[in-house]
Amino acid sequence: MKTCLDCIPCFFRQALEASKLAGASPRTQQRVLNELAKICSSFSLKSSPPETGRIVYRLVNRITEKKDPYTKIKAESNQKALKLYPRLKRRIAHSSDPMAAAVSLAIAGNIIDYGVKNSLNVERELKKIMKEETRLIPKENKKFYQYTKFKGALSKANTVLYLADNAGEIVFDRLLLEEIQKEDPLKQIIYAVKSRPIINDALAKDARQCGVDRIARIFESGSDAPGTVLSLCSQEFLRTYRKADIVISKGQGNFETLSLSQRPVFFLFMAKCPVVARHAGCRIGDIILRCGGKK
Amino acid sequence: MKTCLDCIPCFFRQALEASKLAGASPRTQQRVLNELAKICSSFSLKSSPPETGRIVYRLVNRITEKKDPYTKIKAESNQKALKLYPRLKRRIAHSSDPMAAAVSLAIAGNIIDYGVKNSLNVERELKKIMKEETRLIPKENKKFYQYTKFKGALSKANTVLYLADNAGEIVFDRLLLEEIQKEDPLKQIIYAVKSRPIINDALAKDARQCGVDRIARIFESGSDAPGTVLSLCSQEFLRTYRKADIVISKGQGNFETLSLSQRPVFFLFMAKCPVVARHAGCRIGDIILRCGGKK
Repeated sequence: MKTCLDCIPCFFRQALEASKLAGASPRTQQRVLNELAKICSSFSLKSSPPETGRIVYRLVNRITEKKDPYTKIKAESNQKALKLYPRLKRRIAHSSDPMAAAVSLAIAGNIIDYGVKNSLNVERELKKIMKEETRLIPKENKKFYQYTKFKGALSKANTVLYLADNAGEIVFDRLLLEEIQKEDPLKQIIYAVKSRPIINDALAKDARQCGVDRIARIFESGSDAPGTVLSLCSQEFLRTYRKADIVISKGQGNFETLSLSQRPVFFLFMAKCPVVARHAGCRIGDIILRCGGKK
Repeated sequence: MKTCLDCIPCFFRQALEASKLAGASPRTQQRVLNELAKICSSFSLKSSPPETGRIVYRLVNRITEKKDPYTKIKAESNQKALKLYPRLKRRIAHSSDPMAAAVSLAIAGNIIDYGVKNSLNVERELKKIMKEETRLIPKENKKFYQYTKFKGALSKANTVLYLADNAGEIVFDRLLLEEIQKEDPLKQIIYAVKSRPIINDALAKDARQCGVDRIARIFESGSDAPGTVLSLCSQEFLRTYRKADIVISKGQGNFETLSLSQRPVFFLFMAKCPVVARHAGCRIGDIILRCGGKK
């Protein structure tokens, strides 16, 4: 998926919000916008939005002199989601189809995304998830919710590469990984996180904070793009990506960068921006589980 | 009220949407964004948002070579609102307080605003207004809904200067003007519109299309800013503005430009953007009737 002109105003919004979050003075915030204005005409509309977003956030970090303005937010998101863990675990256990429930909850957890909505109230969003009992398991749908296909591919897989998205959301991933492991304790699960901070994307320490290291091998992609830009990933990651029996990709950023991948990938995400929704052919707020990439 | 940094991403969004609406090719749309990027660092944060907005829309018109991309939209908005006129008229007539009902409907009509939301569905917004029977007359509120003060000032006024906002919305203004005239047929009503096209702001021809010329003198402000920037208005307008017994100002743009005016002004608008809502101390979607400016 390519950066489109609608992404440009959004990058300005994101840069401003990220600068505020970094505690920048209004003068520095203005400098960020001015510097972005200087380079935005050079953005390639052939690159994916996360490739461009990476440039934008690096600019913000450089000017605000904060390497990881989201440190505190990420730790808080993890803690808040961890608090919900026992209730979510029970909910899955009591469901008529625990795996299906774990999958849909993992996607619902994708609501925690600071790139889309910087003034996110994680607590409120998590409460929303907890309330939505009725739509715990979405209906099978050939275009948007290919659960049967997913479950089939998963049952055949020995190695699972799971591409993480955001901090906090990892707790929801963990619940799904635990279900996967429960069904087959011998499956090898690799949980890929970013190598360096970018927005509120999960890092290795977030994965450990949320206890994912108990069920999966935490693996750094080598990149700091808010998605999986293969050209920026390490050779080791690329080998794993090519060889894994199944790739489970969480979030918009990974969908934006891998939707045209050379290998099949299962995309689990919530459509949160109009450009992604248009590309996926769905509506904003839709919960998507779809096999993409070349089959 | 001054342009703030949050306005910058919004100007990019508005410029892009206006370019699309003008039928510009993607290449031209990109040129608009690039040209805006070149000049946005020169925007003064001491100017009001409509002053800056005027520069942005003039840039769009220059590059897309369309003088009035909203011509069709404005005519349609007028027609759609005119269709509702008989129903709205009856609703006011059957209300326990027709003047109060006409005032609140005039503010509700302010929902028709392409600057805020370019992909506006006028029909849907109008339907919303028609449905909201329950809140036809908002409660008196010292900060946000000073109806008693407004009615008192109006009853004493011989000359009324009414600052129009958008096409379509004019029909709602007309209903209020008719109530004003019904209470005192000798009141002189002056209805001020923009002199040249800007977004979907009402021009003299829109006022005539909606029949405002039957009750008021249509008067061009001399300006094409999406608000009333006094320094851009004609001397004749300024004299009228200073001398009128009461000034009724419709919409966000007029509030943004006149909230610190040297004379008292009654602002009637719906808060539609976070920056305006913050300045007014209200929430987005709030219906505001407030006397502002220096008293």
